[in-house]
Amino acid sequence: MNDAAALRIPKGFSFSAVAAGIKASGRLDLALAESVAGTTAAAVFTRNRVAAAPVQVGRAALVKGRGRVRALIVNSGNANCATGAPGIAACERITREVASQLEIPQSSVFPSSTGIIGVPLPAEKIVAKLPELIAGREASEHGLQQFMQAIMTTDTRPKVAAVHFRVGKSEVRLAGVAKGSGMIHPNLATMLVYVFSDVAASPSQVKNLLRQASEGSFNCMSVDGDTSTNDTVLLLASGCSGMSLRSESVRKQFSRALLDVCQSLANQIVADGEGVHHVIRLFVEEAKTRAEALRVAKSIAHSLLVKTAWAGADPNWGRILSTVGACGVPVDPEKVSIQIGGQVVCRKGVAYPFDEQTAHCDLSQPACDVRVRLGRGRAEVVFTTTDLTAEYVRINADYST
Amino acid sequence: MNDAAALRIPKGFSFSAVAAGIKASGRLDLALAESVAGTTAAAVFTRNRVAAAPVQVGRAALVKGRGRVRALIVNSGNANCATGAPGIAACERITREVASQLEIPQSSVFPSSTGIIGVPLPAEKIVAKLPELIAGREASEHGLQQFMQAIMTTDTRPKVAAVHFRVGKSEVRLAGVAKGSGMIHPNLATMLVYVFSDVAASPSQVKNLLRQASEGSFNCMSVDGDTSTNDTVLLLASGCSGMSLRSESVRKQFSRALLDVCQSLANQIVADGEGVHHVIRLFVEEAKTRAEALRVAKSIAHSLLVKTAWAGADPNWGRILSTVGACGVPVDPEKVSIQIGGQVVCRKGVAYPFDEQTAHCDLSQPACDVRVRLGRGRAEVVFTTTDLTAEYVRINADYST
Repeated sequence: MNDAAALRIPKGFSFSAVAAGIKASGRLDLALAESVAGTTAAAVFTRNRVAAAPVQVGRAALVKGRGRVRALIVNSGNANCATGAPGIAACERITREVASQLEIPQSSVFPSSTGIIGVPLPAEKIVAKLPELIAGREASEHGLQQFMQAIMTTDTRPKVAAVHFRVGKSEVRLAGVAKGSGMIHPNLATMLVYVFSDVAASPSQVKNLLRQASEGSFNCMSVDGDTSTNDTVLLLASGCSGMSLRSESVRKQFSRALLDVCQSLANQIVADGEGVHHVIRLFVEEAKTRAEALRVAKSIAHSLLVKTAWAGADPNWGRILSTVGACGVPVDPEKVSIQIGGQVVCRKGVAYPFDEQTAHCDLSQPACDVRVRLGRGRAEVVFTTTDLTAEYVRINADYST
Repeated sequence: MNDAAALRIPKGFSFSAVAAGIKASGRLDLALAESVAGTTAAAVFTRNRVAAAPVQVGRAALVKGRGRVRALIVNSGNANCATGAPGIAACERITREVASQLEIPQSSVFPSSTGIIGVPLPAEKIVAKLPELIAGREASEHGLQQFMQAIMTTDTRPKVAAVHFRVGKSEVRLAGVAKGSGMIHPNLATMLVYVFSDVAASPSQVKNLLRQASEGSFNCMSVDGDTSTNDTVLLLASGCSGMSLRSESVRKQFSRALLDVCQSLANQIVADGEGVHHVIRLFVEEAKTRAEALRVAKSIAHSLLVKTAWAGADPNWGRILSTVGACGVPVDPEKVSIQIGGQVVCRKGVAYPFDEQTAHCDLSQPACDVRVRLGRGRAEVVFTTTDLTAEYVRINADYST
């Protein structure tokens, strides 16, 4: 995987960004990605019943346009959520204008917004900047960097992951960008993820592959357990590499590359955010089903007592065991074992002698593995989560509506 | 309701406490309550699958003794949890000794423990102190005060609630004591509640009434959403008032009095704990069913974003709306309204003009009401919860295993 300095931009895409005055800071807050005709797309959206206007409009556009997308328009600084019918109208006004100026169908324009909830979106500011935005497009790393900057809200750093693989003399490229952390000023911290690739794929192939990759990445991470109203993961396939997913070898390599990109972005999202001091990789093993493993993992990842213990690098396995017992999965406590870092700390439900200083050191690292074995079956999940620090609380409590 | 200074001790009970050296501080840590022959009892236990040894032993004793209890033996400082078969043996050794010295059946001795998880219970320290404990019994307010002190762990104050009502010339008394806050050093903060009454009741009447009262009190409160391994609520009815629940008038009054005692204790538990700055009374209304209202209430009460906003007295209704949308109940966001203090802040899913300074002031009080209307039906619930402060995190992170 390449870092941002060595990005190979997938063919068929161009990017740009401007400051439209939605962010009070005056920073870049409006981003455009355009792609060639024939680009296929699929998206995964928030499961929150309070879905922001762009989520509703984007979902409908993908259906109406049958999975064909030509442009992606994103603003930061305002989530256009809980804004009622005027919010939908504002979003549609923007996609209509983008479509008209790019001379493409309105259903091929995909919108996203991220920022504060409950404040009307100033569509006129965005529309006024569209000519400048469209004129600035470039199919370059610089363009993508600008795009990344413009979608950030409280992120402390941009998040990007790129992979390419060769098939004979051809090269297939993937580049993904993301914003969000779920941690700081979380009304402004929706997760938005866009993965661009020049592979050739049908809309249904794109859809299936994105679902699989999301399941093993974004659905296996949690910072504070809150689900945003605007969460969106979009995959675009321009076809410009000339390589198609009809080939099984290409499909396998692409599928692996897509998972790599998504996992990298998920890890970058979790690791970002001023409140996070420790990232925990939680292995829940010996579950009956993956769903069961995921339920246990989420319970642990959302327990205030466990998360605060991690903040103090405290190898308090009693809190983990108690959370497993309370999560609704019919575990037999006498079969549960817990490992922190390299040491077993609880075996078959009771204390197992371990070196506390070593465990404390392991948990003091920026990242540490915690392993919980349920003794019920062979299913497992790897879940990425974080500690809960006083800093997190201070930042979120000090937030002023 | 009377405060502790004016406690009328229900007839038929005597209390005592000693320091047995389980708490490192040397404070009172072993408590006894004895009751007359014929006393009926019922208990509600933690739903955590990791149930401590005393919970397992106490549950079995209630079944074997058919709801008759003569003595209650409680230690603080050690939860006797995740201690395996030796933990069960230690607990049974203690109840056997109490039974032998009081000359009552072992199945009529009900045990509780609260304190650290995963450390063997020093049964010999407890057994050695039993003669002193038994000799010290007194049927007085002082005895009950000693009992209360001995069951405390990190509580900052004892929790007691008492009610009496007259039926003709007779008086029925209820006195309840509780420990726990779920907030500070929560491995030591199990919720234990004991309600003593001199009403005459059958074991099944006691059971039904306790279930109902718990449903409207302890099951409608949350501090941090974690469920302890030792939570126990026990109701004892000595019959010494001579008034029986066979009379419908007595049953109604008793039922109301029991709910009052339980709600008062629940509120005292929530309000205690150094980390809590604000108690929030959450009214979830217009739900289809009570279960649905409770689900919404718990989701709000467990959202880090909502709880941290409350810590900052921030009237951030977007976080509440988003949490309602994410909780799994099929709400229509356009029917949801939210009220903070006396003001509507969100109506039919969108912002409603309100005075932010007033809302901030309301949330700055020690207690504030927040009302969420779902527009789905007529069921409702009142749920008591708290903010999440940096102090909570610091205390729990600094906890050393």
